[in-house]
Amino acid sequence: MKIFFPGDQRKKVVIIGGGFGGVELAKKLDPEKFRVILIDRHNYHTFQPLLYQVATGGLEPDSVAYPIRKIFHRRKNIYFRLADAVEILSDKNCVLTSIGEIDYDYLVIATGSTTNFYGNINLEHECLTLKSITDALNIRSWFLQNFEQALLVAGEDDRRNLMNIVIVGGGPTGVEIAGAVAELKRHVLPNDYPELDLSMMTITIVEASGKLLATMSEEASSKAKIFLEAMGVHLRFNQRVKDFDGKKITLDNGEELFSKSVIWTAGVMGKLVEGINREAIVSGNRLQVNEYNCIKGYETIFAIGDLAAMATGDHKPHPMVAPVAIQQGKNLAANLNKKLKDEWKPFRYKDNGAMATIGRNKAVADLKFWKSQGFFAWLTWLFVHLITLVGYRNKFLVLFNWIWSYFSYDNAIRLIIRPYKKKDVSE
Amino acid sequence: MKIFFPGDQRKKVVIIGGGFGGVELAKKLDPEKFRVILIDRHNYHTFQPLLYQVATGGLEPDSVAYPIRKIFHRRKNIYFRLADAVEILSDKNCVLTSIGEIDYDYLVIATGSTTNFYGNINLEHECLTLKSITDALNIRSWFLQNFEQALLVAGEDDRRNLMNIVIVGGGPTGVEIAGAVAELKRHVLPNDYPELDLSMMTITIVEASGKLLATMSEEASSKAKIFLEAMGVHLRFNQRVKDFDGKKITLDNGEELFSKSVIWTAGVMGKLVEGINREAIVSGNRLQVNEYNCIKGYETIFAIGDLAAMATGDHKPHPMVAPVAIQQGKNLAANLNKKLKDEWKPFRYKDNGAMATIGRNKAVADLKFWKSQGFFAWLTWLFVHLITLVGYRNKFLVLFNWIWSYFSYDNAIRLIIRPYKKKDVSE
Repeated sequence: MKIFFPGDQRKKVVIIGGGFGGVELAKKLDPEKFRVILIDRHNYHTFQPLLYQVATGGLEPDSVAYPIRKIFHRRKNIYFRLADAVEILSDKNCVLTSIGEIDYDYLVIATGSTTNFYGNINLEHECLTLKSITDALNIRSWFLQNFEQALLVAGEDDRRNLMNIVIVGGGPTGVEIAGAVAELKRHVLPNDYPELDLSMMTITIVEASGKLLATMSEEASSKAKIFLEAMGVHLRFNQRVKDFDGKKITLDNGEELFSKSVIWTAGVMGKLVEGINREAIVSGNRLQVNEYNCIKGYETIFAIGDLAAMATGDHKPHPMVAPVAIQQGKNLAANLNKKLKDEWKPFRYKDNGAMATIGRNKAVADLKFWKSQGFFAWLTWLFVHLITLVGYRNKFLVLFNWIWSYFSYDNAIRLIIRPYKKKDVSE
Repeated sequence: MKIFFPGDQRKKVVIIGGGFGGVELAKKLDPEKFRVILIDRHNYHTFQPLLYQVATGGLEPDSVAYPIRKIFHRRKNIYFRLADAVEILSDKNCVLTSIGEIDYDYLVIATGSTTNFYGNINLEHECLTLKSITDALNIRSWFLQNFEQALLVAGEDDRRNLMNIVIVGGGPTGVEIAGAVAELKRHVLPNDYPELDLSMMTITIVEASGKLLATMSEEASSKAKIFLEAMGVHLRFNQRVKDFDGKKITLDNGEELFSKSVIWTAGVMGKLVEGINREAIVSGNRLQVNEYNCIKGYETIFAIGDLAAMATGDHKPHPMVAPVAIQQGKNLAANLNKKLKDEWKPFRYKDNGAMATIGRNKAVADLKFWKSQGFFAWLTWLFVHLITLVGYRNKFLVLFNWIWSYFSYDNAIRLIIRPYKKKDVSE
């Protein structure tokens, strides 16, 4: 079934994915020239950098997500449809979706990335992930369920396993979760569970390389280590998680850790859509694009953001982070808006740096002209995240929650709304 | 398996249910005299009067729920356990729960009430209900999913069915939902769905009696009718819903209405726990209690709140509302705290009146010395709900959301986090 959109002269740009890249592109496309059809499997845009705070009870999901329709109020040229892309039928210039076929003149794939378990099925079934609002709520529920359970078990080992948390991957997400959980252990859980001996609880990061935040500066990396260790987080470097059976974590050196909760932040890969020529797929499940974000072998199909691997000239593909997606969306919109293809500008990434927050009042920041670690980096982190968050209502709510948590030492949001059951391995 | 609690001289009061009654009782029991074990199937207390605002996108679930453990911080005599009561084994003075057996000296059943479909299985399977946070989120998701779907269907009738809402029952909950949905239709949905013709959408209340808010004053009832009709809500009096197949609603006079969304607010019944003598069960699945809330035929088992039917002397059982539960919890605690049973005081309900809000700035209020309808009643409603809400953080967030929605004409929370699928009838 073809999905019908009121026809007119303007060309149709179909965007798959309402993440940072897709939304920026849709906003910037010239409404005089284009009708834009944006599809996403959710009716909201997720501000992923703050998901870890949803997982650890600091923020409500509604504060870090924003209804896509609301972003495009008063933009009559933009049509949103809640749908999943099933397959790209490039010979027919059309995308098959869960709601029918959608024709395009230009197609932009902005589906982002998903967790990469590198083919390990056990890990995929047993680990928690943190890529979506649902993931974050599952972590929150699972964590609280285990603490409730810990009150009931007789054996000390069992109790310990229910409280322990293992985080795989010492990148920004891993470091931020570890810091937030350490604060929970210190300030929130002792009040909620006076019957439990929290000194038994361990928080461990397992990192395959020799340092935390490997993509950031040496200062950031070593300060992150100092901050986390001071907060009691166990760091295991040069080790990989080989297996996890729901209780026991096996490392590649044969050592074993015990915990019911393993959060996997050790890898991402592009979220591909069926129908793209296999030749365009490169390492990490990403799509090779030229410097105009056009996918190899296609004229009218583009990829932006995490999915796009732009490896022209001497540089490696860009990091899979929000600023790249936003800048690519903007650049592609500007190009498509131009009359002549000769006027198109190649994409150049403007790297403004990176940051990661650690616990309740510290962060590490590598900015362009400034490196900082500690309290001022944390204030900078707060400020940058607040201004980039979509919508004044969300900005205000997040700010309020931060101030509240800061002074009350309390992450207030501790409801198990939908109990989380792990996926059945036999499924 | 017996659940173990550190033993001492104090008697054990087991409370089933962390609603208004259970929480009040636990708070007021003398910590010198009693150890209190509170069990609930959720780890949070729900402020039910505001659930309809969660269902209609005005409030986050976290603002109207409160973690039970947090209520009892620093109350070392109170033990919370996340568990379902399975059966009361009164001959052993013990409750069988989903986590094991719990002994008691005194048992208080405060399980509240659930939706009553009066045995109609079709209605039970197809209707939406509004008794819990999950219910409210399901209504929100279902409603938004249907609007997304409405963009896709070709037939005008199908589109209408997806947008229409039928509310069964013209009591406070029905009236409040109808008003909130009418505001969404007027202010929010036209911006989100410019492609849909919202004049096609109908909101209908089907009420079995001849008036709205039958338990309130004549003024409240007739003004509610005037307010709702002015907002475009269709009112059908003296009609009952006989059947609903997911699309078609059949009324008892043979008329048919068409809608995918029917919200059932037309009846509640006590939520019983197995094991109580059948002789104590009276109409509406409630338990007959004496004026000390002691269940008929028992000495040490009590029921408070919606579940308790106290019909001593010349008065009917109390209405199933929060103030009765709170006052009964308080009275029972005071009685149990006394040394001698001779000093126990019989329960006397202090009725402070009733209110219902209608739309964005109107309400009807029957207070003890004051009846009011309109804007001032609405301000009173806001004030009363704010002060009774648990926790300063929640008070503040709710106030902020109300102010924001009031001035922006926008119910901001419109995420479909977990798509709602109706229960399969064959289940």
